[in-house]
Amino acid sequence: MKYIDINCDMGESFGAYTIGMDKEVISHITSANIACGFHAGDPMVLRRTVRLASENGVGAGAHPGFPDLLGFGRRKMECTPDEIENYVIYQTGAIRAFCNAEGIALQHVKPHGGLYNMAAENEKLIETIAKAIARVDRNLIMVCLAGQNARRFREIVENAGIQVVFEAFPDRAYTPEGTLVSRSKPGAVIYDPEAVAERALMMAAKGMIEAEDGSMLTLEADTLCVHGDTPDAVDLVRNIRETLEANDITVVPMAEIISLKQGKKAL
Amino acid sequence: MKYIDINCDMGESFGAYTIGMDKEVISHITSANIACGFHAGDPMVLRRTVRLASENGVGAGAHPGFPDLLGFGRRKMECTPDEIENYVIYQTGAIRAFCNAEGIALQHVKPHGGLYNMAAENEKLIETIAKAIARVDRNLIMVCLAGQNARRFREIVENAGIQVVFEAFPDRAYTPEGTLVSRSKPGAVIYDPEAVAERALMMAAKGMIEAEDGSMLTLEADTLCVHGDTPDAVDLVRNIRETLEANDITVVPMAEIISLKQGKKAL
Amino acid sequence: MKYIDINCDMGESFGAYTIGMDKEVISHITSANIACGFHAGDPMVLRRTVRLASENGVGAGAHPGFPDLLGFGRRKMECTPDEIENYVIYQTGAIRAFCNAEGIALQHVKPHGGLYNMAAENEKLIETIAKAIARVDRNLIMVCLAGQNARRFREIVENAGIQVVFEAFPDRAYTPEGTLVSRSKPGAVIYDPEAVAERALMMAAKGMIEAEDGSMLTLEADTLCVHGDTPDAVDLVRNIRETLEANDITVVPMAEIISLKQGKKAL
Amino acid sequence: MKYIDINCDMGESFGAYTIGMDKEVISHITSANIACGFHAGDPMVLRRTVRLASENGVGAGAHPGFPDLLGFGRRKMECTPDEIENYVIYQTGAIRAFCNAEGIALQHVKPHGGLYNMAAENEKLIETIAKAIARVDRNLIMVCLAGQNARRFREIVENAGIQVVFEAFPDRAYTPEGTLVSRSKPGAVIYDPEAVAERALMMAAKGMIEAEDGSMLTLEADTLCVHGDTPDAVDLVRNIRETLEANDITVVPMAEIISLKQGKKAL
Repeated sequence: MKYIDINCDMGESFGAYTIGMDKEVISHITSANIACGFHAGDPMVLRRTVRLASENGVGAGAHPGFPDLLGFGRRKMECTPDEIENYVIYQTGAIRAFCNAEGIALQHVKPHGGLYNMAAENEKLIETIAKAIARVDRNLIMVCLAGQNARRFREIVENAGIQVVFEAFPDRAYTPEGTLVSRSKPGAVIYDPEAVAERALMMAAKGMIEAEDGSMLTLEADTLCVHGDTPDAVDLVRNIRETLEANDITVVPMAEIISLKQGKKAL
Repeated sequence: MKYIDINCDMGESFGAYTIGMDKEVISHITSANIACGFHAGDPMVLRRTVRLASENGVGAGAHPGFPDLLGFGRRKMECTPDEIENYVIYQTGAIRAFCNAEGIALQHVKPHGGLYNMAAENEKLIETIAKAIARVDRNLIMVCLAGQNARRFREIVENAGIQVVFEAFPDRAYTPEGTLVSRSKPGAVIYDPEAVAERALMMAAKGMIEAEDGSMLTLEADTLCVHGDTPDAVDLVRNIRETLEANDITVVPMAEIISLKQGKKAL
Repeated sequence: MKYIDINCDMGESFGAYTIGMDKEVISHITSANIACGFHAGDPMVLRRTVRLASENGVGAGAHPGFPDLLGFGRRKMECTPDEIENYVIYQTGAIRAFCNAEGIALQHVKPHGGLYNMAAENEKLIETIAKAIARVDRNLIMVCLAGQNARRFREIVENAGIQVVFEAFPDRAYTPEGTLVSRSKPGAVIYDPEAVAERALMMAAKGMIEAEDGSMLTLEADTLCVHGDTPDAVDLVRNIRETLEANDITVVPMAEIISLKQGKKAL
Repeated sequence: MKYIDINCDMGESFGAYTIGMDKEVISHITSANIACGFHAGDPMVLRRTVRLASENGVGAGAHPGFPDLLGFGRRKMECTPDEIENYVIYQTGAIRAFCNAEGIALQHVKPHGGLYNMAAENEKLIETIAKAIARVDRNLIMVCLAGQNARRFREIVENAGIQVVFEAFPDRAYTPEGTLVSRSKPGAVIYDPEAVAERALMMAAKGMIEAEDGSMLTLEADTLCVHGDTPDAVDLVRNIRETLEANDITVVPMAEIISLKQGKKAL
């Protein structure tokens, strides 16, 4: 039996501003990466997003980013490791309190935007973030980019004392080396819903994906990243989930995937 | 044997900006109210302030305020109860994660500035804040203003499921009714170090204080609020502590005072 | 011949966040109140909104608010007159530089949200704001609420050295005394497009409006405030403008209305 | 007769936070680079700093930085040219309004911190900033780093339609190529007051400076950058000015230096 998680960024609204169709997409996903107030999100949004996750049995995760609301956390910022460590601790703690308030456990931490992109190419930064997470709560799972660096990232995160899962992007093209094709290149994002659902299935069922040059690439992913910001995006997520389930893939929160794997190991 | 706590606002620096002589005052106090990043403080400051408290055996507390760095949280803001609840949860969670990182328990929550002042006159707001704290962690203590409303505040906070302590201000004049004389009035703040130390002793030893009209006022305080923003202020705190200890008052963190009281009740 | 201005809040987006259908509504209005970065708006949004106004022959105005992005400037804040003065100078200067960059003159200043509401009931605040505006540029026009206090407000603003225009709200109910019915009361906001257009016409053509008790109220307005945040709102604005023009009301920016009035006086 | 300007960063306080001894240093300098609210400064601070400059006959300048109060604008941020252009326009406009309010002209613009450092190595960024300044006010002067790139920077800034002045740092070591020795290297900052004053004199009197390897370097500077954040720094500035004046260097605001140069050209 095959298992996969579907994760989606949520809770990105701020004050009077709305981003994301959280209520529409929540029923199709199993893990939510919730903005923590630095690049998006605010205390009111955090509360209702954590509650939404709780009500839908979706794993609630922190989505910490750079302190740059104006840039939505997408811009790289020249921060020291100490700054990053403390930014992650702060944001993880903030959302964790809302999980306490709603009676659920915080499930995971996935860096956002510029921080995620910087970490995907920087082992030292992965280590900094993993240690920050471990200092807050050893039960938290860290989400890293599947592909080229996965083996090394696993080592670093597990050494820090927490579990790791790897995510893949069904709507993104991959190089034959297993890295994401830069968004600045044509074909980097795949828009055809059928193609995306098929790629999701290949990732979940085979642990493989077709790279941009047509070669087949091994890509072991525990969770698939999807988007929920437009009605079309929500349809696409529904389609992915239906396709997975129609092909006997069980879609569950990443914490269950970790448990299942640990169960297997224990046998 | 008499016990009292001495609490002081700390961790109010921000980025390149410094407020407070935290390192100098820490050895003279027993509880620190640490800014949480809304009206003051930032992740780096939080980390080092929580560590400073830990290293000095000082109880670490959250000092949540309005989201108004420009006004240092002193300005009243028209917020809904839901907003205040979630602002308190957010800030309490943020600092609590730094306590996790430093291996100590968060001890208490004391509202800051405009929020404190609004709460001191508003039972509904006390209830909102107490419930927010309880939702994060039932072991937290809430600090309220001693005096006129103490009995009612105790009821509200304990009903919310957490412990309460009351604080008095040795350097502030009191009305005969047991409220603070407004800072806008002459004589509202007492600057003479000997007078302040003597008032602190009277509060700690007798549970009384001389009001502005010369009458004696009953004022049951568990903790005395002091300041650490100037060298003179630090001297004043040292003097208060020495005076208390020279008069057989034991100065301990508020959590111990709660324990001692509960121990007495249990007997 | 009758003249009226139609003003609308614009430029309220921020970073990745969008509020308002500025491009859709711009062709139906004659004056734009543009957020200046405190409660909404940012440098990128300011630039493109000022340009949009310029390209459409719409008078560009500053819409200064409280420094409270989280509350969208709607919450009352306890600020000193000096603070308000300097907040208005700062924001007016910021947008004025974008007008310089786009080669147009800044036309007017209209306080936003909580600041507007506080000023509508406070002559001292009107004076503070008017003086702040005058200190930046004597050619600027200040927008005040038409009705009960208009005569007194005119005196104050003109004494400060600048021109004043008064605005009415075609979609809001009025008390017989000429104040806005509080939004918390039923019937405070009028949603029927035909009724709103008719009220706009009565305001523009007769300088009168039917109050909530059915009595007729004199309400001299130079400009009508409309909204552009939803497709329905944009339709409503188009309908207002068409109704006005079909009834021989000429819709022009408020600066022209001032000029026309001054021309009349000069004759 | 020789002329030089002395410029100093000012107005870097924020809300309850103080940085800089502005009142002490103001009498020793001739141009003030005033923070505009993005990396430091706020509307209250801007008002009193512009007034302080005005009262002391000191040229008031904008000191625009990245929108990063937490990092004091020192961290590099990945911004687009459009973003930088609009950040500069916004901040320049904000301070210009305070100059209007105080009845003086804004004299110059000097980028701050990370933005300055990025611009010092990037012609394209110099052009972006120069054009932004020119769009606000053609009478403004842009301050650039003297040395290696000065000739090219002059070309770019003058092509944008505004005047340029070059600044040197008497307390910083220079490479033989005329660039600043990185602060991370030993000896990068010179602390000896006599040495700093002597270097200032050599810069002002000879247009030369001794590089770190002992070689003499031509360095044509119109303005010397000094600091005013500590009592020692203020003493150092006083000493620099006295040394310059004792050696017949006339210390004047940079606008006068531009005028004097243009006068010479005109002859």
